[in-house]
Amino acid sequence: MAILVKKFGGSSVATPEKIHGIVDRVLSEKKPGDRIVIVVSAMGDSTDDLLDLAAKVTDNMPKRELDMLLSTGEQVSIALMAAAFCSKGRPAISFTGGQAGIHTSDVHSKATILDVDAKRVIKALDEGKIAIVAGFQGITDEGDITTLGRGGSDTTAVAVAAGIKADFCEIYTDVDGVYTSDPRIVPTAQKMDEITFAEMLELARLGAGVMQPRAVEYGEHNGVAIHVRSTFKNDPGTIIREEYTVQEKNFVIRGVAHDTNVAKIAVKGVPDQPGVAYKIFSALANANVDVDMIIQSVRDSDGSNDILFTVAKTDLVEATSVVESLKEEMGGFNYDVEINVAKVSIVGAGMLGSPGIAAGMFGALAKADINIAAISTSEISVSCLIKASDVKAAVNAIHDHFFPNN
Amino acid sequence: MAILVKKFGGSSVATPEKIHGIVDRVLSEKKPGDRIVIVVSAMGDSTDDLLDLAAKVTDNMPKRELDMLLSTGEQVSIALMAAAFCSKGRPAISFTGGQAGIHTSDVHSKATILDVDAKRVIKALDEGKIAIVAGFQGITDEGDITTLGRGGSDTTAVAVAAGIKADFCEIYTDVDGVYTSDPRIVPTAQKMDEITFAEMLELARLGAGVMQPRAVEYGEHNGVAIHVRSTFKNDPGTIIREEYTVQEKNFVIRGVAHDTNVAKIAVKGVPDQPGVAYKIFSALANANVDVDMIIQSVRDSDGSNDILFTVAKTDLVEATSVVESLKEEMGGFNYDVEINVAKVSIVGAGMLGSPGIAAGMFGALAKADINIAAISTSEISVSCLIKASDVKAAVNAIHDHFFPNN
Repeated sequence: MAILVKKFGGSSVATPEKIHGIVDRVLSEKKPGDRIVIVVSAMGDSTDDLLDLAAKVTDNMPKRELDMLLSTGEQVSIALMAAAFCSKGRPAISFTGGQAGIHTSDVHSKATILDVDAKRVIKALDEGKIAIVAGFQGITDEGDITTLGRGGSDTTAVAVAAGIKADFCEIYTDVDGVYTSDPRIVPTAQKMDEITFAEMLELARLGAGVMQPRAVEYGEHNGVAIHVRSTFKNDPGTIIREEYTVQEKNFVIRGVAHDTNVAKIAVKGVPDQPGVAYKIFSALANANVDVDMIIQSVRDSDGSNDILFTVAKTDLVEATSVVESLKEEMGGFNYDVEINVAKVSIVGAGMLGSPGIAAGMFGALAKADINIAAISTSEISVSCLIKASDVKAAVNAIHDHFFPNN
Repeated sequence: MAILVKKFGGSSVATPEKIHGIVDRVLSEKKPGDRIVIVVSAMGDSTDDLLDLAAKVTDNMPKRELDMLLSTGEQVSIALMAAAFCSKGRPAISFTGGQAGIHTSDVHSKATILDVDAKRVIKALDEGKIAIVAGFQGITDEGDITTLGRGGSDTTAVAVAAGIKADFCEIYTDVDGVYTSDPRIVPTAQKMDEITFAEMLELARLGAGVMQPRAVEYGEHNGVAIHVRSTFKNDPGTIIREEYTVQEKNFVIRGVAHDTNVAKIAVKGVPDQPGVAYKIFSALANANVDVDMIIQSVRDSDGSNDILFTVAKTDLVEATSVVESLKEEMGGFNYDVEINVAKVSIVGAGMLGSPGIAAGMFGALAKADINIAAISTSEISVSCLIKASDVKAAVNAIHDHFFPNN
C-alpha cells in the first residue's frame, strides 16, 4: 500500500486513446489500498493552439488573462482523464490547481507555489477515488488563476506529493531515468538508480534537461522523493532523494553534463583598477543577464586586464548591447564575441573529499586533444568551456574516464 | 451614467475579429462614467468541439466532469475579450463564474443560481475596469464548477445585473427585440418597446424562443429590467420589466406564439371511475414527462371516458411507453398518438379584464377554416391545439385579428 503522485506530460495525454492508455497502465499497476493522485498537463499541442488564438487577438496579452486562457488546457485534460477512469468503473474526480489547494504568488505566468492545502484531494482519496489534478496552475489569495511557467506540472506534482505526504512523486517522461550523461551523445551512459537532490540540481543547472530545477528544489525542501521513469516502459527509473539508500559503487562523479546554450564575451584591455569588474557585471545584472563563468587575467605587458565571461546564447543580444554601451562610457577596451563554444561539466557530491577529480577531467580532455578556454568550479561540479564542435568528443572522453566500466 | 450588463452569445464572439467587433461597439456606445459588465458565452462551436472530444473518451461523461470540461469554453472567451479591451487601451479584467461570485446548487449540468456575491466585479468597476464575466457557469459551496444548462448565459447576465444593481441587463441576440409574433411566419409582426415579465414568461412557455424562461424569472424575482436587442443594429430593442412605463396603446393581447414541439396522445375508453386520471398522470410525472394540455370527455354511450393530453415531441417515446405499460396494467383502453399537431396561443395580461378575447381567437381560426382539437387557458393566455400544417395560417389569422393596424 503506497501513496503515489504520478505526473504525465502533454504528449502522454495528447489524444483520447492515449488518455485511456494511461488509465489502463495506472489501473494495472495499482495495488489494493494504493492512494493515487495523477497530475496532468494540457493535451499535446493544445497550449500552443491557445497561444495562437491569443496572438490573433493581441500581441500583448495581459499575463493575468494569458493565465486565465492557458489554464483551460489542463482543465480539459483532467476532466477527460477523470471521465476515462470512471468509464472503467474506477471512481475518480478532477481538481483544478485552485481546487487542489495549490496556492501561489501572484506573479502571473511564472507564479511560485507558496503552499498546498490538499484537504480536498485527501478527502477524495479517503473516499477511494483517484484524484486528477491539473498541473502547471494554481490560485492566488484573491482567487485569480496563475500558471507556474516552464516545467510547472513537475512542480505541481512534487508540491501535491508534499501536501499529501506521498511515498513517491513519479514523473513519467520520454526517457527512462537520469543517466550518467546524455545517452544520445554518450552511448555508454548508464541509468542511475538514485541521485541526490543536490547533484540533480547541479546537473540540471549545467544542462541536463530531465527535470526542471524548480521541481527538484521543491522536492528537496519538502523531502519528497521523486521517481523519474519512462512513460513507455514499466522498469523502474531513477529516484531523486536526499541521501543514497544504497551505496551503489563508490562513484565520486555522478554525471557528465553539457550545455551548448553558451556564448563567450572577452573584454580586452580594461584598466587594472578597482571597480572595473563591478561596473561590467552590475551593468549586466541590471539588464537581467545571468553571467555564468568569469575569468580575469592580468596582462603583464601593459598592466591592463582581460575579462572573459559567458552568458546564455539567448541573452547574447542584451549582453552585447550592455558591453557596447560600457565601451562608450569607459572607453579604451575592445571585445570579442564567440558563439561556437559549449560547456562540459562533471557533477558529484563525492568530489568534495576526493582530490584530483578536476585534474582527471582536464587530463581526459588533454588526451582527446581538446583545448580548454575557461574553467569554473562549484562545491560539487567542475565545468570547462570548450569549442562547440568538440562537445561530443569531450563528453565521451570525460565519461570514459570517470565511468570506465561501462 | 449608467450601470449596464451586456450579454453576448457564442456566435457574437466566434472569432478574434468578432471579439474585436464587440469591443469596438461597446467602447463606441459607452458614455463617460458608465459602469459596464460583459457576460459572454463560449466561442462559436467550441462547446460542440468539447462535447465531441468528450464523446471520444466516454459516452457516459460524469456530469461534474462534463461541467469541468465545458466551463473552459467561456473561460477562453473571457480571457480573449479582456485582452482585446486592454489592447485598445481600456482596462478590463475577466472573471470565471466562480470568481464573479455566481453561487449555484450542485446539480451539475443544470445548476440553479442561489446567489451572487458580486464584490470582485464591483471592485473592478470601482477601479474603472470593464468586467468580463463567463456566462453559463458557477461554483458550488464546495468550490466545484457547475454549468447552468440551456440559456444559462442569459441567466448569468441577469443574475450579475441583480448583484451589481444594474440599470439594465442587455441581451444581445440575432433578433432585434421581442415581436408580437415570429416575424419569419407573420410578416406584419411588430417589435414591442416593452413587455412585462409575466407576459414574456408566458410567451416563452408557449413557444416564443427569444429568451430563456429562467433568465426572465430571475429578472422578475430580482427586479432587473432586461433589454433584448440586436447584435447587428444599434436601435433599441424590447425592454422586459415589471410594469409598462408607457401605455403604448391599449393592447389586451401582447403576442401570438406557436409551438410545433407538441404531440397528442388520446386515451380512449378508460373506465369512468375515480382515480383513473390520477393513475395516468402520476405515472407520466414519475417518468419525468411534462404534460401540457389535458382534455377529458365523457362518452354518453357507454359511460367510459376519453382522455386527451399533449406532451413535447421530445418526450413522446417516454410518454408512449408509460401509456403502453398502463394499458397492460389497467386493460380495456386504446390509444392514438398524433404528431402532426401544433399549438397556437395568445398572451396578454390585459385579457384578465376583457371578456371575449378567447372568443375572438376562436372566431379568427374559424374564419380561416382551421379546426381546433383542444383548448387550454391560463390567467393570461389561451392556447388551441391545431394541425401542424395549419400553423402559419392560424398564427397569421389570429395576429391579424388582434393587431389589425399593422
